[in-house]
Amino acid sequence: MENKKFLTILKIGGNIIDNPTELKQFLSDFSKIDGYKVLVHGGGKSATKMAQSIGLVPQMIEGRRITDAAMLEVVVMIYAGQINKDIVAQLQAYNTNAVGFSGADGNLMLSSKRNHPTIDYGFVGDVQKVNTTLLGTLINSGIVPVFCAITHDGKGQLLNTNADTIASELAIALSEFFDVTLNYCFEKPGVLFDAADDNSVITSINQELYATLKADGAIHSGMIPKLDNCFNSLQKGVQKIKIGHHRMLNDTKALYTTITL
Amino acid sequence: MENKKFLTILKIGGNIIDNPTELKQFLSDFSKIDGYKVLVHGGGKSATKMAQSIGLVPQMIEGRRITDAAMLEVVVMIYAGQINKDIVAQLQAYNTNAVGFSGADGNLMLSSKRNHPTIDYGFVGDVQKVNTTLLGTLINSGIVPVFCAITHDGKGQLLNTNADTIASELAIALSEFFDVTLNYCFEKPGVLFDAADDNSVITSINQELYATLKADGAIHSGMIPKLDNCFNSLQKGVQKIKIGHHRMLNDTKALYTTITL
Repeated sequence: MENKKFLTILKIGGNIIDNPTELKQFLSDFSKIDGYKVLVHGGGKSATKMAQSIGLVPQMIEGRRITDAAMLEVVVMIYAGQINKDIVAQLQAYNTNAVGFSGADGNLMLSSKRNHPTIDYGFVGDVQKVNTTLLGTLINSGIVPVFCAITHDGKGQLLNTNADTIASELAIALSEFFDVTLNYCFEKPGVLFDAADDNSVITSINQELYATLKADGAIHSGMIPKLDNCFNSLQKGVQKIKIGHHRMLNDTKALYTTITL
Repeated sequence: MENKKFLTILKIGGNIIDNPTELKQFLSDFSKIDGYKVLVHGGGKSATKMAQSIGLVPQMIEGRRITDAAMLEVVVMIYAGQINKDIVAQLQAYNTNAVGFSGADGNLMLSSKRNHPTIDYGFVGDVQKVNTTLLGTLINSGIVPVFCAITHDGKGQLLNTNADTIASELAIALSEFFDVTLNYCFEKPGVLFDAADDNSVITSINQELYATLKADGAIHSGMIPKLDNCFNSLQKGVQKIKIGHHRMLNDTKALYTTITL
């Protein structure tokens, strides 16, 4: 089997997007990553702010935000319009040939509207299929895809989709062609032994340690679905996953968590 | 010299975009056009509506709208986000492999901020360069580019750019590789002998007839820069230009104006 080329997939969230200075620094660091790469970005607070300023009231059911038709319009505008194009233009200034995509573009990511037995989440999509042929061709031709968290159902309907899931689905699908490292950048320096102590970074975690820490209660709440998702991606072919603050990209002393099977 | 392949470039404006039923019909017709094609869309009224609903006051100087920073954010959201992704998702439903682009994506269209001796237009771009290599490759691979009226300056700044100009600059640049027909769809059935009579369509116009009709006063005001722009594009390599209502795409009896040198 021939050696696969390395591909770095990086997901950033609201903590970077909401801070123009951090975003600029991050994009400069991202532009310096060698080799093939893909960026996935979440939304940050702008969509909520925009929704409020046009008088939309957030629809919540059982603590979950519902994407009704009006909210979908807002997230499409903000994620695929404002944030995505701003990132693409900034990356171009760093000589990175970025192209912004939603899942509808090139049918790159097909979803189905979530069908939940008791909660109608509205226009929320669960990923069904990645168009790896086109995406692989684009990446191999030197394009750096920048994905926003919008997909489509193939029948003309755009759908709001979790950015972490988009990153992991891209990583799984592209691991057919590439040796993929998936990086989740968030506000913490990594997975922590003690959530209150940023210095307690677990530098390396595998399924065995994860089981122990979960049983001890050291890893709990929001970190559980995140890590379950990571192990699922690794089982499906992703080579390596890193979780940490985006400073891990340019600060060689910065700690982060590496996740392997 | 080998024969160039045919490429249809189609520009649509607000009259179609503001009417969901007409837009749907148009996109269905567009999806049936044989061969290589590109769609360019303007903005319609949504940007103005959005600007009003968040309390922006349109800035006008000498009757021209000024794109200040706040208005640029709105047009990027609406043009590159809402309208562009809606069109792309609908075209995907018609099995047309559309990909939405601003000029920043893939550095496809580089502009410079307009530098006018007396009026500061704000964040408005005049097109400098089309990345025909990448665009030609994408089109040849079966992708149908859908351009919104946003470009960039290569230094990280997005710029609002006239959609008619984007269409003509794409047509000129792509005529290097393709035999290009440029279609401008607007609310009228074509260039009219009498602006008040929709039945007075001039079915064919060349430079000579244009000069005569301009001298007679039959062609005046807004139609003059439009036609000047058309003849300029033809002189720079575009094969043929059609102006008419979008019904010309599916109604073989519909009149329209063909412009040649």
